[in-house]
Amino acid sequence: MQCATCTGPVNIAVIKYWGKRNEKLILPLNSSVSVTLHQNELRTKTTIAACPNFTNDQIWLNGVEEDINNSRLQAVISAVKRRARKRKSDGETNPRLNWKLHIVSENNFPTAAGLASSAAGYGCLVYTLAKFTHFKGELSDIARQGSGSACRSIYGGFVTWDKGTNEDGSDSKARQIAPHTHWPELSVLILVVSDQTKHTSSTAGMQTTVETSELLKQRLSGLQTKEDQMTDAIMNKDFKTFAEITMKESNQLHAVCLDTYPPISYMTDTSHQIIRLVHQYNNINEDVKVSYTFDAGPNACLFMLDSEIPRFFSLVKHFFLPENGHSTVQGLPITEQTLHTDEIQKFKLSKQNGSVKYVIRTKPGPGPQVIEDPSESLVDDEGWPKPISDKT
Amino acid sequence: MQCATCTGPVNIAVIKYWGKRNEKLILPLNSSVSVTLHQNELRTKTTIAACPNFTNDQIWLNGVEEDINNSRLQAVISAVKRRARKRKSDGETNPRLNWKLHIVSENNFPTAAGLASSAAGYGCLVYTLAKFTHFKGELSDIARQGSGSACRSIYGGFVTWDKGTNEDGSDSKARQIAPHTHWPELSVLILVVSDQTKHTSSTAGMQTTVETSELLKQRLSGLQTKEDQMTDAIMNKDFKTFAEITMKESNQLHAVCLDTYPPISYMTDTSHQIIRLVHQYNNINEDVKVSYTFDAGPNACLFMLDSEIPRFFSLVKHFFLPENGHSTVQGLPITEQTLHTDEIQKFKLSKQNGSVKYVIRTKPGPGPQVIEDPSESLVDDEGWPKPISDKT
Repeated sequence: MQCATCTGPVNIAVIKYWGKRNEKLILPLNSSVSVTLHQNELRTKTTIAACPNFTNDQIWLNGVEEDINNSRLQAVISAVKRRARKRKSDGETNPRLNWKLHIVSENNFPTAAGLASSAAGYGCLVYTLAKFTHFKGELSDIARQGSGSACRSIYGGFVTWDKGTNEDGSDSKARQIAPHTHWPELSVLILVVSDQTKHTSSTAGMQTTVETSELLKQRLSGLQTKEDQMTDAIMNKDFKTFAEITMKESNQLHAVCLDTYPPISYMTDTSHQIIRLVHQYNNINEDVKVSYTFDAGPNACLFMLDSEIPRFFSLVKHFFLPENGHSTVQGLPITEQTLHTDEIQKFKLSKQNGSVKYVIRTKPGPGPQVIEDPSESLVDDEGWPKPISDKT
Repeated sequence: MQCATCTGPVNIAVIKYWGKRNEKLILPLNSSVSVTLHQNELRTKTTIAACPNFTNDQIWLNGVEEDINNSRLQAVISAVKRRARKRKSDGETNPRLNWKLHIVSENNFPTAAGLASSAAGYGCLVYTLAKFTHFKGELSDIARQGSGSACRSIYGGFVTWDKGTNEDGSDSKARQIAPHTHWPELSVLILVVSDQTKHTSSTAGMQTTVETSELLKQRLSGLQTKEDQMTDAIMNKDFKTFAEITMKESNQLHAVCLDTYPPISYMTDTSHQIIRLVHQYNNINEDVKVSYTFDAGPNACLFMLDSEIPRFFSLVKHFFLPENGHSTVQGLPITEQTLHTDEIQKFKLSKQNGSVKYVIRTKPGPGPQVIEDPSESLVDDEGWPKPISDKT
């Protein structure tokens, strides 16, 4: 039996992807820019096992077997195999390309948290397939066909997904702008918001926006400039510009969602309260110290420099986290700061403790990683998924 | 002592006004269309009293004396007086034009309900000033200088505010498209939503939108077509077109608010739940039976034909009204309809009883009215405000 195990990261778009020009190939209407988050906090792990006597391709996601015939899964599996077969340097076709695959994948964060799990999942799947088939070469355009934003999870640090212009999508792929080590002071707080609503999937949502929003066209016409400004801001570690474009981009994404018919709303009252906290915090500081971005759900992803974390977190705790709550901080440790009453009173916000369930502190991080330690594999010696309880 | 008492209506825009091209004259960037609501349910009443021995102009709104030197108040008072003085038919200037005024104004609905009280207030004030000064002529351009949308409250039924092109604003005024009797089957439900948030005033909000929203330009470019379609829909009593444009317009207004920096959000989770109920209701009926519109606050204004009221209201009661709540319906009576479990189960909505405080049923109605009955006056025999308790 042959095995490969890899981990892959989540990415958070700061120039948003919303709208396809080709549904089947998943070609976007605009280029996007993202920050890859560190896998110490948020990661997908995928093991691919194969041997000549497996009878079927099978896939298990978070302990549940899923349909391997899903068209997007089939597209990426066959695309990696096809590309691996084309490599002539092996002399002959790798025999494992003809074996049936057992694919086991797990997130170390709840899918329900709404943290771009499909991007991490498809990014990691494609990367693991490539390791398994010994293919070295472009992967992001294949990951894109699983889930558009997954192409950005193939790289670490700061990443652009160039929309491309070719009809076959061959130039619609991701590239790294800068590695995660480029901006070591940049910190990320994810505020996981309590929410029972079942939200419109981003696939369905963006399709309806393309069909019905009158404002989308205007949004698209201004994006190239924003992408250039964002790239410059990242290269120059210009936090203020980075933060302002990030916030305006998030707001505009949700504006075109609201201009969709029927309208789509991903943010909740709590999301809007977080937005108010950030703007009030920046106003009080007379500088842009914190920025927010929201995807297809109510959770906030906040960017700030490390030095800002203690004070801003303490405000989040005061206004939003459960009172006397345990384990409300995950990931990197946070030192709290004592808030004075006169400092709190500057904020025109009502306390709604419990409206944010918990906070994850993380950083930008590297791209997918190969895991060599066999004890980390998600399959047993026979190539079947280990029980969930056996794994960390 | 001389007195005049009038009542004036609220209006609800179906093509929204958002953004001025001239802040001082209150000239809008686009024309708008509204429905004037019936004064039996929602009205402002204003009494103007004057006599030679009053020493100061004074104004009381809802029992509280306000600053008469407010620039917008001064603009409308002096504009009506100026126009009345120009009328030569009196032979000589009416002496009461030189007397000091006591202005007393009250709404029969809570200001906190966020129901366009400034439009009703300024509309009624200008109308009452005109009656008091015996001026007959164009009033809507004067009302506009108090509060933009007030110009539409000068007329009953279905009203357009033409944005005009003159620099002095002389052609930026309202006109009636059709009287309220034109579409007698049209009914209005106002859902008053529980909300503690202090919202951005529409004056400040639209100014920030004009300064910062990238999408506003695109919105403005499409509005003339929408206005024409809306006018046709009203003339033809084409509910489906009327309803669809109304919903899309509301969504787009709130989209450009969200695209403002910092973003403005007037709708709450409850507002979005009401939107979902309306779209699901229309989907289940395979026709557009109900439409919503939201202004600078979370309350929903719903349009539907009379025949739809019992069934739709029963759903609102089931999902949103307080359980065992008293006086949750105001205005025109509503006959409830028993809902069957299988009917309710078609809706993918969770019950949030109490998220809507009460419902007001009303209809389109006429323009401002003169009240001849002296017992209805808001001032006593000396020209001072009657205590609130003396009035209904």
